[in-house]
This record gives sequence, C-alpha cells and structure tokens, in this order.
Amino acid sequence: MLVIDFTFTTRVHEYLFPACLITPGLRKSENMSDYDQRAIEMHREWGGKVDYASKVTVENHDDLSVVYTPGVAAPCLEIARDPSLARVMTGVGNLVAVITDGSAVLGLGDIGPQAALPVMEGKCVLFRNFAGVDAIPIALAVREVDDIVAAIEAIAPSLGGINLEDISAPRCFEIEQRLHNSLDIPVMHDDQHGTAVVALAGVINALRLTNRDFKDIRTVILGAGASGIACGAILREMGCEDVALIDSKGLLTIDREDLNPWKREAAQWCEFRNNADGSIPQTSQVMEGSDLFLGLAGPGLVTVSDVASMNDDAMVFAMANPTPEIMPDEAAEAGAAIVATGRSDFANQINNALGFPGMFRGLLDGGIPKIEDEHKIAAAQAIADFVTDPTPDRIVPSIFEEGLAYKVADAVKATG
Amino acid sequence: MLVIDFTFTTRVHEYLFPACLITPGLRKSENMSDYDQRAIEMHREWGGKVDYASKVTVENHDDLSVVYTPGVAAPCLEIARDPSLARVMTGVGNLVAVITDGSAVLGLGDIGPQAALPVMEGKCVLFRNFAGVDAIPIALAVREVDDIVAAIEAIAPSLGGINLEDISAPRCFEIEQRLHNSLDIPVMHDDQHGTAVVALAGVINALRLTNRDFKDIRTVILGAGASGIACGAILREMGCEDVALIDSKGLLTIDREDLNPWKREAAQWCEFRNNADGSIPQTSQVMEGSDLFLGLAGPGLVTVSDVASMNDDAMVFAMANPTPEIMPDEAAEAGAAIVATGRSDFANQINNALGFPGMFRGLLDGGIPKIEDEHKIAAAQAIADFVTDPTPDRIVPSIFEEGLAYKVADAVKATG
Repeated sequence: MLVIDFTFTTRVHEYLFPACLITPGLRKSENMSDYDQRAIEMHREWGGKVDYASKVTVENHDDLSVVYTPGVAAPCLEIARDPSLARVMTGVGNLVAVITDGSAVLGLGDIGPQAALPVMEGKCVLFRNFAGVDAIPIALAVREVDDIVAAIEAIAPSLGGINLEDISAPRCFEIEQRLHNSLDIPVMHDDQHGTAVVALAGVINALRLTNRDFKDIRTVILGAGASGIACGAILREMGCEDVALIDSKGLLTIDREDLNPWKREAAQWCEFRNNADGSIPQTSQVMEGSDLFLGLAGPGLVTVSDVASMNDDAMVFAMANPTPEIMPDEAAEAGAAIVATGRSDFANQINNALGFPGMFRGLLDGGIPKIEDEHKIAAAQAIADFVTDPTPDRIVPSIFEEGLAYKVADAVKATG
Repeated sequence: MLVIDFTFTTRVHEYLFPACLITPGLRKSENMSDYDQRAIEMHREWGGKVDYASKVTVENHDDLSVVYTPGVAAPCLEIARDPSLARVMTGVGNLVAVITDGSAVLGLGDIGPQAALPVMEGKCVLFRNFAGVDAIPIALAVREVDDIVAAIEAIAPSLGGINLEDISAPRCFEIEQRLHNSLDIPVMHDDQHGTAVVALAGVINALRLTNRDFKDIRTVILGAGASGIACGAILREMGCEDVALIDSKGLLTIDREDLNPWKREAAQWCEFRNNADGSIPQTSQVMEGSDLFLGLAGPGLVTVSDVASMNDDAMVFAMANPTPEIMPDEAAEAGAAIVATGRSDFANQINNALGFPGMFRGLLDGGIPKIEDEHKIAAAQAIADFVTDPTPDRIVPSIFEEGLAYKVADAVKATG
C-alpha cells in the first residue's frame, strides 16, 4: 500500500521518524534504516531513476532526415489528417504521466512537489518494469483544484493516460472526477482506485475461502481519506450493504456536521447515527460484530480486543505502511481467519503494484478513453483469479509473479 | 533551420506539398519524397522516438525497497530539507521539456499539438544524442498566452529546463519573456534564440573572413517572425547599427501602423521610414547596398539581381527550409562572397542543432537559472571558434563533429 489516509499523516510521520517529529530536516542519520541509507546512496549515484533514452540513433544527415527534418513532416501531416495516428506514430499511445502536487506523499504528508519526485520516478520504474508502460514523473507547483485540473488538461495531448498520485483528500476526488469527465484518456488516482482494486482482489479470495458473499458481511474501514472512501465505494459496488467508514473523529454518521461532501456522501451509504448520547461511535464500538476490517490509517490504531470482538472468520486487512494498524501475528492470535498487510515481509501483501501497471497496460492497449467501475472490478477479479488455489496465507499473488500484469491487462482490455 | 517565419507559412506549405494546398489531408503519396516514406514507416514501426526506460531494475522486494517504498522516503525527506538536492537525487537536473502548442510547426503551420509530437520527439532525440540531455515532448492543448504560461509554470518543478518550440509569433515572445521572469530554470524559445545563436556563429566567421566588424555592416533580415526578430536583436547586441527587418508587407518602418508591439520595437532600432510617396520599401529596395542578408521567410523570395545589388563581400544566409530564399549557386553567381542555407546538402548549414543541445548541456551543468544574452553570445562564439580555419565554404561546423556540443556547453557554463 502506497498511501496512508491523509488525516492520519502526522501520526505516521512521527512513527517513521521519531527523532524529528514532523520536521524532516531534523532527522538524524542514526535513525535511518538500511533501506534509507541505500536509497539515498542509490538516488545520489543515479540522479533519478527514469532513463529518457532514444529509440533511434542520429549519426549522419540521412538519419537526421528521417528522425527530424525534412522527413518528420510526413508523419506530422498524417497525424494532422487523422489524429488517432498519434497513438501509432508517436509515444503517446504508451505513455502515462505520474502526476502529483506533493501534498500527501507516502506517509510523509505535504513535502512539496520536488521532494515527491523520487516516489513518482519510482512509480514510473514500476510501470515500465511490470507492464512495459512508459511513464514520466510530473510534479506540480499548483495546489488549487482549478489550477491542477487546468495544468493537466493542458498537457494531456502529450499523454495516453494519467496516474494521479499522492494528492491529498478531499481535493483528489474533485480533481479526478473533473479530469475523468473532460479528457478522453484514462485518468486514475491510484491512491484511491489502485488501492481499492488490490484490496478488493484480496477480499474476493478471502470470501471464496470462507464461503461468503459480499452482501453477507459487515465491513469497517478505518481511514476515510482517498483510499478508504474508494475501498468503501468499490465494496458497495460489489454488493456490500453494510460499510462503516471511520475518520480521525470516529464513525462517519449522518448526524455529523463536520464532514466534507465526500465523507458526507459515504455516510449516506449506510445511514449510521451517532450514539444516543450524541457521541460519535469509535473504532472499538464499530468493529464489534464486523466481518471485514480495512485499515488505511496508521500504526497501532487497532487492538487485539478490537479484532477479538469481530465475528468468526474475521478478515483483517491492516494496510498502513510501514507499520500496520495491528501486527499480523497479533491479529491472527486474536482470532482473525485471514490477515493481510501492506508489508512485503508478511503474507498477503496488498500492494498497489499488483494493479496499476496491468490496468494501464490494458487501458492503453484497448484504447479505452475512460476508466470505469467495470474496469476496476475486472482488474480485481483478474488479480484474485491469478491465485489458482487461494489459502489464508495466499489470497493475492506476489507482485513479482510472472505474467500477472498482462492477465490484468487482458481483463481490463476485454471489458472494453 | 527548423522553423520558418510564421507569416510566410502558407507559402512554404504550398511549396512543400503542392498537391494539397495547405490541406494536409489531401496530400497524395506520389508527392512524397523518399524521406517522407521512410519517416512514416519508421514512425509507424517505432511508435515514438523517446524511450522512457528505467535506470534501475526491480526484480525482488529488496530492489523495490530501495527504488520505492520504504527506502524512497529517505531521499524524499532529504529533498524536502534541501530542495537543491532534487537536482542530485532525481532526474530534474538533466531534464528539459520540449514544449509546443502546435501552432507553427516546421514550415507546416498550425497543425495542432498532437501532430507536432513527431517534431518534439525528434528534438528530444537530438538533445540526448548530441549532448546527453534528457528530454520529454510536451504538446499543449491551450493557446492563450495566460494558459500556456500557467501550464508550464505548473509543471516546472519536474524540469531542469524548458525548450519552447514551434509556438507562433507574436505569442512566443510574451510566453518566453514571462516564463523567463517567473521561473528559476532556463527557458528558451529555440525558434528565436537557437536560430539567432547559430546564425550569429556563421556571421562571426563570415566577418572574420572578410575583415569586418559588426558595426561596419548593413543587415537585411527577411522574415520578422520569431527567428527574424531574435536574429536582429542579437546582431544589435553585437554592435550592428543598421539592421532592417522585412515582413510580408515590406520593411518595418516607424511609419507603419500595422505592426504588433514586437515588430514596432524592432522598427525603432534603426528608425527606418516609409518612402516619400508613403509606400513601404520592399525587399529589392532594402537589399540594395547591404552587406548581410538573413532569410527566414520562404522559398524564392530573393532574386539574383537583389543579391547583385548588395555591397562587395556580400554575405547571404538564405535559411528557409527546405527551399531557401535564393539557391546557393545563384547567390554565389550573383556575387555573394559567403553563402549559407538551412540545408544539409550545401555548404554552411545553419542548423539549430549546432546550438541548443550544447547550450542546455551548459545551462544544466552550471545550474544556471536563467538564460541571458551573454550565454547566447558565448554559445555563438564557441560554435564559430570550433571552426579552426574558416573558409567561405566552412563558416560553421557540421552538427556531427565530435565534441562540438561540449565546447558550447563549456562556454555557456563558464559564462555562469
């Protein structure tokens, strides 16, 4: 899982870098992990991770006359005559921009556009590595929704798809929706839908293992930011009738007047109410008697007794990274039948990289102009189906399993 | 020369593709040159010329933990602490965007942003090929100056430099000026300054060969678009006191009331007047008694007798492409001492690719935040000096001469 609910960012950041307390500059090297040290050395050594190379060489005037003037005028005119040829004769047909404003980066929060670039470049590397999708990192200097939408619309003719990344809620919802409506290339905010797709894949297999259907389960989602709301929405789409979202103040209820429009809409899904005394139900109260827990919040926010209070065959997806809402062994001891996290060192890693590379591969190959719910569900189903014999320790594949991205791509493309 | 004065675009276009008369879609394959055919085949086969590869591979969780989460958080925080580290730890320090709105592409005119992409990608290939500069093509959906400026400012944190390309005059002047003022990375409209720098390099050696100084010559520039005005400005900067610009109506005079603000300013340089009868002086009249002719207009606009009417040791740079204002052999027969064109099949090719790759190499390596006149002049001098023994047939180097871009880069960087 790449992104943590923004409302919990500060806590996560404190956890990650306890010495600095949300002041990145004060972080001391003795708090660095081995990965930190190696990452810094690697980034210094390589100076960026995307290699903007050339497919062609230009060694003499003959080369130049085909790659550039005068020959290049011919493909230009072909595209002017038939704009769809841009996908054939230029790179746009295979090019996705990974775009951020740097406002909600990983668990680090608002570190600004340039500091977000190593993450965007990393995502570009994953696009290319897992699915042969070309990708460029774009970090935006603007923050207003109107300005972000205008900038992305302006550069859209250069692109075949747009992966929005690490843009804080609730702005990310409106930005994605407006671009989805205005552009004829697929636009996806991965923190929302990439997360939702991969979590859904895990839930599909978890339900398969425990012989249940979406309509039979009670779901609790801790974290009502970009990813939490998207997970809730896709579960509702799959037939879940009882989906409770919790933000930093507690359950989203229709009684609360402090909700932004997106949280307010989510509160309408199930029309939960405040307690009789007017208080907002808290995590422990909401989790009792539930079947599925999705954590998209921060480390240690769920207790052993919270999990123990869930129904039999409880499914606990504690996806905060690097430290989940509850550690997997504790969740299992507390009675959870199926446990997933965002970490690679435990079973069932819910990792966005299972989804986005293949999804965009399929969208680009299919020339699909807009990503819709059916594409997301097809992708989730393909990820779930990739595991031929699911077990409690294997509800999703590893991101390194050969052929996964192309299976996902085929499913998305077939959806049309 | 990559770009023709926009005011003459229609004529050039007719010449290039006589069968279609500015309607690109009607062009027939029998009018295609060998280069056209090969360019179309190559662009279809390769699907774009920029290869967005990865510098790193991600084959296992250990790789992923350094390239992406959790390790990537460390370089992110380093950059958040010290933004200058973005140039070290990400690709921005070596990345130029080649940006167009598709309004004045080659000699083709306004073919729109997507049809312009083969040219932008070609330029990216040249950046990388000649100077190791990474480059990405950006085609803009917007046309208003405010919108173009806003979009480019918005994506600027992703970039180390901006090469504006094929944006029609007079909007290109304001766009470049505003971005030059607002951004702290170098911004150059290559159609203006790339052309001016390389033409200046040729003029430097032509004057050297004929033992003259800039202040001693009368210059006539045919074409008062982006490149023509930029050439005039840099010649004035070098000490030329008598620079006449001609647009499609004739000489830019202070009497004319049909001039845009940039042409009006250029008319002030020398305070030319209309003829006594109120008519606007035309090319033949203006060229008589001149020493240097720069053609940035269109094919066949200058006659043998125009060149014959110039002073002794006349220098004729007929740079319209693919067909110059006057063919080189005709100009020589008419008495021109030094002849240059934009074509690769004649001596003295005034090709922007002599300039922009090395210029940006130097700007990036020097961390130079704004490109100023002194950088352009240093680049022109370096290109001129690269020719150790100039002759009338060799006033500029070939773009394929080893080491040129790095000599230009060193000169720009040394300027600071």
